[in-house]
This record gives sequence, C-alpha cells and structure tokens, in this order.
Amino acid sequence: MINFQTFPGQYKHWALSIDGSVAKLSMDVQEDQTLADGYKLKLNSYDLGVDIELADAVQRLRFEHPEVRAVVITSLKPRIFCAGANIYMLGTSSHAFKVNFCKFTNETRCAIEDDARHSGRRYIAALNGTASGGGYELAIACDEIYLVDDGNSAVSLPEVPLLGVLPGTGGLTRLVDKRKVRRDRADVFSTLAEGLKGKRAKEWGLIDDSFPKSKFQEEIDARVREVAQADGSPNDGGVKLNPLAVESSADARDYKYISLRMNREKRYADLTVREPESKLPTTPDEIQKLGDSYWPLCAFRELDDVLLHLRVNEPEIGLVCLRTEGSIDNVLSVDKTLAAHREHWLIREIILNMARVLRRLDLTAKSFFAIIEPGSCFAGSLLELMLASDRSYMLNNPEVAQTSVCISELSAGALPMSNGLTRLQSRFLAEPAKVDEVLAHERPFDTEAAEEAGLVTFAPDELDWDDEIRLAIEERTSLSPDALTGMEASLRFAGPETMDTKIFGRLTAWQNWIFQRPNAVGPQGALTNYGKPTQARFDYKRT
Amino acid sequence: MINFQTFPGQYKHWALSIDGSVAKLSMDVQEDQTLADGYKLKLNSYDLGVDIELADAVQRLRFEHPEVRAVVITSLKPRIFCAGANIYMLGTSSHAFKVNFCKFTNETRCAIEDDARHSGRRYIAALNGTASGGGYELAIACDEIYLVDDGNSAVSLPEVPLLGVLPGTGGLTRLVDKRKVRRDRADVFSTLAEGLKGKRAKEWGLIDDSFPKSKFQEEIDARVREVAQADGSPNDGGVKLNPLAVESSADARDYKYISLRMNREKRYADLTVREPESKLPTTPDEIQKLGDSYWPLCAFRELDDVLLHLRVNEPEIGLVCLRTEGSIDNVLSVDKTLAAHREHWLIREIILNMARVLRRLDLTAKSFFAIIEPGSCFAGSLLELMLASDRSYMLNNPEVAQTSVCISELSAGALPMSNGLTRLQSRFLAEPAKVDEVLAHERPFDTEAAEEAGLVTFAPDELDWDDEIRLAIEERTSLSPDALTGMEASLRFAGPETMDTKIFGRLTAWQNWIFQRPNAVGPQGALTNYGKPTQARFDYKRT
Repeated sequence: MINFQTFPGQYKHWALSIDGSVAKLSMDVQEDQTLADGYKLKLNSYDLGVDIELADAVQRLRFEHPEVRAVVITSLKPRIFCAGANIYMLGTSSHAFKVNFCKFTNETRCAIEDDARHSGRRYIAALNGTASGGGYELAIACDEIYLVDDGNSAVSLPEVPLLGVLPGTGGLTRLVDKRKVRRDRADVFSTLAEGLKGKRAKEWGLIDDSFPKSKFQEEIDARVREVAQADGSPNDGGVKLNPLAVESSADARDYKYISLRMNREKRYADLTVREPESKLPTTPDEIQKLGDSYWPLCAFRELDDVLLHLRVNEPEIGLVCLRTEGSIDNVLSVDKTLAAHREHWLIREIILNMARVLRRLDLTAKSFFAIIEPGSCFAGSLLELMLASDRSYMLNNPEVAQTSVCISELSAGALPMSNGLTRLQSRFLAEPAKVDEVLAHERPFDTEAAEEAGLVTFAPDELDWDDEIRLAIEERTSLSPDALTGMEASLRFAGPETMDTKIFGRLTAWQNWIFQRPNAVGPQGALTNYGKPTQARFDYKRT
Repeated sequence: MINFQTFPGQYKHWALSIDGSVAKLSMDVQEDQTLADGYKLKLNSYDLGVDIELADAVQRLRFEHPEVRAVVITSLKPRIFCAGANIYMLGTSSHAFKVNFCKFTNETRCAIEDDARHSGRRYIAALNGTASGGGYELAIACDEIYLVDDGNSAVSLPEVPLLGVLPGTGGLTRLVDKRKVRRDRADVFSTLAEGLKGKRAKEWGLIDDSFPKSKFQEEIDARVREVAQADGSPNDGGVKLNPLAVESSADARDYKYISLRMNREKRYADLTVREPESKLPTTPDEIQKLGDSYWPLCAFRELDDVLLHLRVNEPEIGLVCLRTEGSIDNVLSVDKTLAAHREHWLIREIILNMARVLRRLDLTAKSFFAIIEPGSCFAGSLLELMLASDRSYMLNNPEVAQTSVCISELSAGALPMSNGLTRLQSRFLAEPAKVDEVLAHERPFDTEAAEEAGLVTFAPDELDWDDEIRLAIEERTSLSPDALTGMEASLRFAGPETMDTKIFGRLTAWQNWIFQRPNAVGPQGALTNYGKPTQARFDYKRT
C-alpha cells in the first residue's frame, strides 16, 4: 500500500532548508530508496515516492513557513539537476499505475503554480546541471529557470526521440502555453534527445538565463535576494501540519472527520465527511492557535489523503458515494469565518487547500454519486462535494424529516474548478442567471426547492429511495471502467479551458493512449527496450 | 483504396432534393453497399462510405445551391432515423482505421456547423424515428432537433453502456458545450442505453421539441418555411463542383495544381502546390463563370482530396514535405481579388473552403515540413501551408536567386485555425505585436528577413541545405509515429480552445485510448462482443 503522508524528517530524496524568507528545496535522490523493486533511481530520476516528498514540501511551505517568499529548487548532485521520471520504473509499471503516477506528478506541479499565483511565493529553478524530461518539466513549473553554462548542461525533453512517449507531466503544454515557445521551435526541441544548452535555450525561451559555472551560485543568490526582499511577509510562525490520524482495516479507513467503507464485491465505497464542531474559533489568531486540527484544514487534508488512497490503492473501486453527516449550521458557521478573514494568510491558505482538494476530486478517475439524506450537511464547502459529483440523489421526504442543502459565502468563487469556473457556473452554463438565483438563496433548499433550482439530479421519495440508489450503484459499477473515465473527463469540464485542463484533459489523454501502444510498451516498444541492448522497432503506421 | 470523391448521382445512401430555398437530405442506407466486407449497414447505421456522401452533399449545398437557407436532415426508413456508426464495422476495423473514420466524421459535423455559422444556412434534424449514438451525434451537429413522439422513438448515446467506448463523434462535448446540458443529466443520458423520449428529452435540452406522429411532418414543414423565408438569398445558379481530374500511379498522384510523390522506403512524401495562372478574373461574375476551375477553389479541393488520401490510403507515410511552385505575384493577385469581394457569396464560400482544408491539414496525423526554395510561392493563402507546418526550412542564398515568402490580405483572419486564432497569432503567442509587424510588411520577406521576423524555423545556406533537409527527414521518420501524433496534437494548438479543438484534442484522445483498451477491443471487450451470444467481461480496475 502506498502511503502519501510524510514529513521533512522522513524525506529520503529532498532536503528542505529555510533561511529567513528563502527556502531551498534540494533534490538528492537516493538510488536504492525506491517505492518498488526492480529499478534504481540514478541521476536524480524519480518515482512516486520522490514526488510525494516534493508535494509534501510545497504544502508545508504554505502552512508552516508563510514567511518564505522565494523557493529555490536545485540539486545536490554534481552536473545533474534531474533526469526525470525513472524509465525502468515506468517500463515495469502497470498501465494504471503509470497513469496515476503521471496524474499525481501533474498535480504537484500545478500545486507549485497555484502557490506562485495565489500566495505570491516565487519558485526559482536553479539548474546546476542537466534537466531532462521530467526534470525540465519540474523546472518549467517554476516561475524562473536558470541553467549553469558549463559546456555540458542542457535542458531537454527526450521522451519522444528516446522513449516513444510524451513528456507527460505538462511539458508540451507548458512549452507552448506557459512559456509560449514558438510551435516550430517547440517541435524541434521536443524531438532533440540531447536538448539545448544555455545560449540557444535562452534565445528560444526555454530558460530565463544561463550563467557560467563560476558565477552560477552568486547569480542565483542575487536573484533570490531580489525576489525575497520584494515584499513584506508574515512571520508569525505558521501552522504545523502534523501527521493525520488514521485507523485502517481491510475494508475501512477512519480519520477524525472522514470515514471510508469499501463494498468490495460491489466495487463501490461510501465516503462520509463529518461536520465541524460547533463554536469553533472565529478570529485568525484563535484559528492559528488551534492549528491543523481546525476542521476545514483537517477535514480537507483527510479528504485529500483518502482520495489519493482510493486512486492508487483501491483500483477496483469504481464508484464513490459521497455522504456528509452533521449540522448545516456548523458548516456554514465555519464558511462564514473563512470568508470574513480570507485576506489573512492562514485563512487564504486554508481556502486554497480546500480548492485544490476539490480539484483533486474532479480529476479522480472514479464515479462520484452524492447521497443526500436527513442529517447530512451538504452546505457551503461541502456542497461542492455534491456539485463535483457526477450525479446526486436527494431524498424527498417532506412529511418526515427535513433534508436540505445550502450555499455559503464560499460558493461564489473561492473554490474554483480547474477550468476557472465555480462548480455552480459549470453546472448552469446554459442559464448563467441561475447561478445568481442560487447564490441569492441564503437559506437551506429543501428537496423540492433543490430540485426546482436544478441543484440535484434525482429526488426519489422514501418508497423508491433504497431501490433507486441500489440500482444506480449496480448499473454504474457494471459499466466499462475505461469508457467511464473518458466520459467523465469529457462531461466534467464543460466551458472554458485553462492550462490545467489542457494538461489533464488533452495531454494526459494522448499520453494514456501512447502508454497503451505497442510502439511504446510492446515487446519491441521504445519504453520497453530503453537501456537494453535490443533496439525498439516501430510499426510505422500513423494513427 | 478509399476514394473520397462522389456526387449526388452516385449516392447510395442519401437522397438530396432541393425545393426552392429548402434542401432535404434523406438518409436511406443500403445494407449491402458497404465500403468493406464483413458487415451490413442495418437500421441506417453508417460506415465511412455513408459519411463521404454526407460530406459531399454539405459541400455541394454551399457551392451549387447558394439559394438554400434550410437543410432538413431526416430518414427514409420507418421508425429509425439513424443507428450511428456500424458496430460490426468498428469491431472489424484496425485501430488506425477507426481513428481516421472518427476524425473524418467529426470533420463532416464541424463542416455542418461551419456552414450554419458562416453561411447562415440552418440545419434541422427531423428525427422521424430513433436517433442513437452517431445518429444523435449527427442531430446535435444541427441547429435544431425535432423528435417524433410515437411512444417509441428516442434519442440516445448508448456507446458507454453497450459498447464500452465513447460517443466519439463529438457527442459528449456537444452535449455539455453546445447544448449546455447540465453535466449530471449528461452523465445520466450518456449511460442510459435506451435513451430518452420526447418530454424528458426536451426538458433536459437534448432536443428542441417533439411532435406527435400525426403532426410531425406538418410541424417540420412549418418550421422549415419559417427558416427558409427568414432572409433573401442569392439565386444565381451556384457553381458546379465537377469531379477532380487526378492521375495516379503506384507512387504518385497528380492533380491539376497538386502533385504528390511518395518516397516509400523513406516513409515520406513530397506534396507540391502549383501557382495560379496569371490574369485570372477579378470580378465575382467572371469568377462564377469560370466556376470550379478557378484556382483557389480547384487547388484547395485538390489539397483536401490529397490530404484525405494520405490519411487513409497511405498510413506508412509519416512526413509530408510541403512545397510550392510558381510566382508569388500570381498568388497575391488571387488573394487580392478574394479579399476585395469576400462579401459575395461565392467568394465567401471559396475562402471558407480554403480555411476548412487548412484546418484538415492542421488535424492530420502526419508531420509537415515546409521546404522553401527559389521558385516557391509561399504567399498569402499558400503561406498558411508554411505556418501550418511543424517546421519550415528556407534556403538562404542571398547572392544567387531570391527566395521569399509573403503575407496577403488573407493572412489577417480569413483562414482561422480550429482554436479561433490565425496561424500567425498561434505562432506569436508570446509576442502578439509581432503579428502586426508581420502583417504590416506587405512586400516579400527574403530569407534573412523571414528568419528575423520569426517566420521560419531554419535557414541553412546552400552548402548545408541538402544534408540538413535529408537529415531532418531521416530523423523525423525514425521516431515513434504514436509519440509524434500526440506531440503534434499538443504543440499545434496553443492558446484558446473551442468546441472543435475540444472535440479533436480531448474527446478524440480519450476515444483513441479507449479504442486500444482490452475492455473495448480485447477478446472479452464490449465492442468485440456486441451482438454476439458471448458477453463482455471487464477488468474493473479504474485508470
């Protein structure tokens, strides 16, 4: 079982050091400390274990070190920054694992950009040696890229010429859409195994500058000082992210606010999120004292962990029924506090984390049904769980107990999808006015009102409820898991596109296709034969 | 060899009738008139042959029947509109053929929308029976959808539940992005094999209306009259599209203005476009008299045909070297005439056709290199060939003969890519000001000026020219054809996305992936086992 939790004291492959407002993330991959057998992580190449540490470090910087303004990403190995994803690991992994690996590494790079965009930290890739493949893709996720000019070091995307696959961690998209490299140059660069060195790399926009070896550190330091001094930053200590408490058994996983129950033979899971406590603090100071046990931080960290667990460790679970338990008022009260103080660094980070976790849900290749019953609390931030679901079922029982859902201050834009829209906007593309109507409705919607407003898919009454849910689950889990993945990827992201949706929707889909092709993974495929005495042999038919 | 040329007198599956400003396109697929053996086209299901006729009919309406304002698409079979792409055809086709088939049918549907958007014809899908899968996808490409209410007829996308593949002809994208059906309803609809009938289909936005069987024809007629009378329309006879003259041999294909030479052992082709005649007519009346032999209409129809030929009949050709021959002045003179009269219906159609053909090139899964030598005429509309190429090589020979390229009035927006940008805008995403600089440069660019302006990728001198081109070709054709397809699809379409780019980039990539998956096409896959006594069995791992 793969564990996504770690902390700096446990890192094997990265060193995180903080000096005032500057953080340094140094890559020093330990060859033998792999997540699986059968490969060695030479030349700062990485597997999922290495990226889990990177994701953890980026997350920690945001909560534990708000004073940091500049993050330098560099390598402790001489002459090599990072050789990218380990080829032998890819060559020996299942298709599903490769796809999940790429998705996670993509999310980590998007998280770096999210930090830069919303929290103003500036990421500087100090390439003290060659950055190839995923190594350059990590650099291109940073704001600035500097390459040592030592006559040897280069940046490259050798996947197409050497491996017969794509640079699948956003490289192609970021080349033309982020750095806006001219498409013909991007074409040349992406087919050139040895890549490009300082002068031409700079001329083509692949890096921001290159410095001779003797001056490299000095130039990086100077640039980092400039960035670090650019603005003031809070220095009130941050909030420590402690390990999540989780009890797990064969078919269950229980966190403080989240429970997961596997129905293995039926290939679905019930995921329940529990309400916050009543009377939580309402000022940033008190919240900062409460730290990582504050509900919106703790519950969404747990949700993140459980989603990653489901993706990687529970591949046969095809459907997740999302449920909530508790008082709508308690959720609304937390949202109100968050909305009131969203300018405060910690509250901002808590909200941004919720948004990232919800996007992780949108991008998870499982079906999600929201199940709304009496005693549930799909309100505000938790209403997003319902809106993120592929469908929702809400019990219609007007005469017995009240079942309701409710918007909050966070429904109007604080928790955007990857396409830049709110989930309400995505839902009501046809009738944008409905978004405003729903947002103006500040009291809870009972089932009939929710159905009338277009918020829920189905509203069966008590007579039909059990059968309808059971049938819907049976039907869903009987369908082709691949067709569902492609369908959900197409239906969840209507409307505008962003670099993120292009990476997850377009680039990833092409990579998944290529990861299935004999030219890459067959006995004579390029990925299979990389590093072996045998040569790849292609079926040259163009498709 | 598949032939993409046809004409109404030769149609086997469609009847095209014109009555004043109304055209009727009636589907009546002949079961046994298939393009290949091994399947029957029952229930108005279609194969590529059926779609070639549809594409031809839509194209002819634009040129031969400019007076037509409303196009009714319906079926001559009782109780069935269209059952979609033939499953047995898909089940017995190679992966490459399936992908090319879907691409062409997608382009046909985009051509219908292009006609509606730019030429003001209104397409009305009169569903006199069930429209399932590709049948509904054809309907959803129309502007209005009316379904008969006979207690039985439905619209449906049964691909996911029945076949384990996606509705791959734009259906999922158009559901949520064109008709803006709510995503949860789209999810339900796309997993419901039997689809939805009149009332709910209308309520969910899947159709515009439904009428009882007894009134169906009457209601359609009334709506069509309304549309047809909405505005005046030219009635000066149109321009007949005659069959293209083409001489073909084992390794060559010669049209009036285009030649194709196959270098089979090296897996590339040379495609040369020849200049227009000098002193072509300059007024719409004269051009209309000249008809389909007018260079920009003839040469681009030929280009379209040769691209389709390359895609489907020459799968092993991985690279096309684009060349032009003739006088830049002759090309510019044609462009000047076109730009001056672009409001005239025929000139508008000629330009829109050029734009569609160039988009067909952008979407072709082959590499394109533009080769610019003395005597070439990459100017205006033909400059787009260079800009559409993955790379360009321009000979630098200032002391001998002049080599040049040139923009024209058509470079500024008349020939947009699928992403809505001009090829110059796509090229200079990083420096939008360069687009204006290039457009302001009305005289030809010699090689140094073209390189300086960022228009060409490489400009070798005569000493290096032959070797550099030879090496570039050898390198390109040695790479994995699948990796190149994914790479080109990612690099060609930087910047904004449209419904078209979503269909070709995102939906198609997912479908291509699924078309490779054992759950669809393996011995136990759903596509393989459809209609057989055996049942599909899935590997339920989610990817």
